[in-house]
Amino acid sequence: MDKSDVKVLFGRRIRELRKARGWSQEEFALHVDMDRSYVGSVERGERNISLENICLIAETLEVPPSELFENWRLAES
Amino acid sequence: MDKSDVKVLFGRRIRELRKARGWSQEEFALHVDMDRSYVGSVERGERNISLENICLIAETLEVPPSELFENWRLAES
Repeated sequence: MDKSDVKVLFGRRIRELRKARGWSQEEFALHVDMDRSYVGSVERGERNISLENICLIAETLEVPPSELFENWRLAES
Repeated sequence: MDKSDVKVLFGRRIRELRKARGWSQEEFALHVDMDRSYVGSVERGERNISLENICLIAETLEVPPSELFENWRLAES
């Protein structure tokens, strides 16, 4: 798998789970205590996010970290 | 969950899966094309490893990335 794909697939999954919670990017950014611009860039697949931030996002979305790596889709939903 | 716990739990899981493949740290480092010292520090929970490296490790261990976040144990096995 291409490295850039990994970031894009991860970002789409975050967006999907964030929307499933009914949160805007702004609301999610507040809950996770990250910049809205950072959250946006993660969702767009522009960030090589760290393990600690991955786990912080999972905790905020109230899913196990493994859930962030499930249901990766190449097609935009 | 404490941030340092996340790195320790992740590192232990990598070590477990690496051993399950029958690889020494040296062999794993060669396959994954990372420094042996880096692999050692990841296993000891000293690295806030990036998404791309997480996925590269999963690919090398021939497991889905989500598997690296399963069966996290606080106790040393």
